[in-house]
Amino acid sequence: MDRALVFQSDFGLQDGAVSAMYGVAYSVDPALRISDLTHGIAPYDIWEASYRLLQTVGYWPQGTVFVSVVDPGVGSARRSVVARTAGGQYVVTPDNGTLTHLKQQVGIEAVRTIDETVNRRRGSEQSYTFHGRDVYAYTGARLAAGVIPFEQVGPAVDPATVAELPVTPACRDEAGAIQGTIDVLDVRFGSLWTNVPRALFDTLGIAFGQRVEVTIRNTTRTLYRNSIVYAHSFADVYVGEPLVYMNSLNRMAVAINQGSFSKAYNIGTGNGWYISFAPDPRG
Amino acid sequence: MDRALVFQSDFGLQDGAVSAMYGVAYSVDPALRISDLTHGIAPYDIWEASYRLLQTVGYWPQGTVFVSVVDPGVGSARRSVVARTAGGQYVVTPDNGTLTHLKQQVGIEAVRTIDETVNRRRGSEQSYTFHGRDVYAYTGARLAAGVIPFEQVGPAVDPATVAELPVTPACRDEAGAIQGTIDVLDVRFGSLWTNVPRALFDTLGIAFGQRVEVTIRNTTRTLYRNSIVYAHSFADVYVGEPLVYMNSLNRMAVAINQGSFSKAYNIGTGNGWYISFAPDPRG
Amino acid sequence: MDRALVFQSDFGLQDGAVSAMYGVAYSVDPALRISDLTHGIAPYDIWEASYRLLQTVGYWPQGTVFVSVVDPGVGSARRSVVARTAGGQYVVTPDNGTLTHLKQQVGIEAVRTIDETVNRRRGSEQSYTFHGRDVYAYTGARLAAGVIPFEQVGPAVDPATVAELPVTPACRDEAGAIQGTIDVLDVRFGSLWTNVPRALFDTLGIAFGQRVEVTIRNTTRTLYRNSIVYAHSFADVYVGEPLVYMNSLNRMAVAINQGSFSKAYNIGTGNGWYISFAPDPRG
Repeated sequence: MDRALVFQSDFGLQDGAVSAMYGVAYSVDPALRISDLTHGIAPYDIWEASYRLLQTVGYWPQGTVFVSVVDPGVGSARRSVVARTAGGQYVVTPDNGTLTHLKQQVGIEAVRTIDETVNRRRGSEQSYTFHGRDVYAYTGARLAAGVIPFEQVGPAVDPATVAELPVTPACRDEAGAIQGTIDVLDVRFGSLWTNVPRALFDTLGIAFGQRVEVTIRNTTRTLYRNSIVYAHSFADVYVGEPLVYMNSLNRMAVAINQGSFSKAYNIGTGNGWYISFAPDPRG
Repeated sequence: MDRALVFQSDFGLQDGAVSAMYGVAYSVDPALRISDLTHGIAPYDIWEASYRLLQTVGYWPQGTVFVSVVDPGVGSARRSVVARTAGGQYVVTPDNGTLTHLKQQVGIEAVRTIDETVNRRRGSEQSYTFHGRDVYAYTGARLAAGVIPFEQVGPAVDPATVAELPVTPACRDEAGAIQGTIDVLDVRFGSLWTNVPRALFDTLGIAFGQRVEVTIRNTTRTLYRNSIVYAHSFADVYVGEPLVYMNSLNRMAVAINQGSFSKAYNIGTGNGWYISFAPDPRG
Repeated sequence: MDRALVFQSDFGLQDGAVSAMYGVAYSVDPALRISDLTHGIAPYDIWEASYRLLQTVGYWPQGTVFVSVVDPGVGSARRSVVARTAGGQYVVTPDNGTLTHLKQQVGIEAVRTIDETVNRRRGSEQSYTFHGRDVYAYTGARLAAGVIPFEQVGPAVDPATVAELPVTPACRDEAGAIQGTIDVLDVRFGSLWTNVPRALFDTLGIAFGQRVEVTIRNTTRTLYRNSIVYAHSFADVYVGEPLVYMNSLNRMAVAINQGSFSKAYNIGTGNGWYISFAPDPRG
């Protein structure tokens, strides 16, 4: 019963919304161990919420319950679900695409829709705008505390029906370059995290210390095209020098050592931001 | 003895002030369950601190101890108190108006002034500028941990003497419109939270889906006057469309679905920001 | 075994990095009590990280384990260490200057370098860029939980070899003025925290209520020179009036009551920002 409960949202930490969720959860069981993934998801940014779950869920023990509330459709007919990942963690969330990355890259074993006739904080029936507090935190806390087993969340549904956002898989193109997207930033450091797995990049046959031709485009223009050294880590290059490296999720990333690549070249993230890696034609 | 301790302040999370308070509290009892309401209160904004307590305290179990430190008068003769709410939670705070909303809308059953000759961290007598750490966190931790009962905080005082900030109650005016103030923002989403209770709004006889005439003024001018649909929640309107709705505290609110009403029209909050709701004269 | 684990970094709270560290730590022992010092250290700012440890470590119980990850040299040959302070707390950190203030002002009794062949999260050998998760959080958690004693962190090294950043000690100059540096800001309030101890300031013989001549320079120019009242605390001066006072770490500080001294005069912090205090020549 010593399961952790982890909250994520786009609420920020400036007001009382997160603490109201904590209060609801501790009212279910004061012995819960509650912490935050982040509440700094950009407002309504389901894609980022999905990625942050991918970035963290696997580092937590089996049975950990995540509650993710980025919910632009609150009050609509969108389903509320609890998903069990292949790693044995649970995610309580509106079924609006928040599970995209976990579904595709980790695997979702089982899903149940939340039966709000039983899994809703008593007295909250007239409240239409804060399901995070009234339904998700409450249900997540009951699940984490063992008050209800997964089966009592509500009816089972086919994991294949879980909503997914559009995703463009990384691939090797006909010219032999690796094509990917820029999924997300390592926010504080401005590094670009791509969807290109290390194994795919390795098919280029580029060794540490060699240079890579990096091209970055969005849907309207090319923003960057240059050759960058492929390094183990930041300490292999000068301060201020860019590098290509494998990030902490085993995917390829681009950064400036102690600078911000995203600010330097105005690079954004999401499914409309493209990156390619190719051997440097100059050798 | 399994009571939670919840901190609020205007210290921000950028430096070590909050963690010093945690350390003092855990030194009293390492088994305390400590979390944060918010440390993002605007510096010296007692009104906002008062409102955030109203927004959260009632969702926490009886016996929970809140420590709220927004204290522009630190070092002055202002009293330090512990209040027990009608719901059975405690608030440790300077008596500077921080208890305004709880006193008026929830009720305060008992108040004791902190006797600093006993309820002060040993060795801190020469420290004049961080009562949050030296007095409030220390006293709150001792109360939450059961080291002292409420009675040993210090002398009882009449709850009627607790300081209140100026508040303008919502009312129905002679023309039949509802007059209120904009108490606070749902910060991340830019929604306006008013002091108009749902029951008072309902006296207008406006049904879901009908339109409301909304006028917003501050002390110098009218900033907004238009008719807005009254909706259950955001999902009832188009993305980018404004709506009037009941917020998660059962009071009326105004928002733009997936936009920011406060940024769109430069709306602020506090006792000098007025809002009125009336039936749409065009039907 | 009920030791607290406290994290500090320059990661911010916007992404999943901190939560991944929490997950690794809770995977070691779900009963750990984890909290945050701050994750708002300016990127790569080792000086600030060092100061924030000084500001907090002493308020925590003996045996508390701090994990501080401000690590511009990740992947380089810089040592990873665990230091035991004179107060009996532990700090897990890259040995890059993060221990400067604790070493000089609190004392470090013992240091061990982390043996990464045993103290590294299993399966993380190919990850070069997130030692915070793979080595520091993991080792800190094992130490806090009692899975390993301090001796099993790795080989003992001489505390005298711990890296220190350049520091200019406060002193009394030939003209009788006190010369110091501005170490850090009380961020939210814009107050300047100097390295001048109260006892050194007291040699000026200035009583509360008297005026002090304050001069502030950086490496290129004088930014402020004026006389300011020496006060117990903010409440002793008018709103908007500057004051010199002793801060919560028993060092001299300069502020504007309910304003921001650092913003008002564009004052920065670090070893290149100088302040002097002298008796007001006008009496």
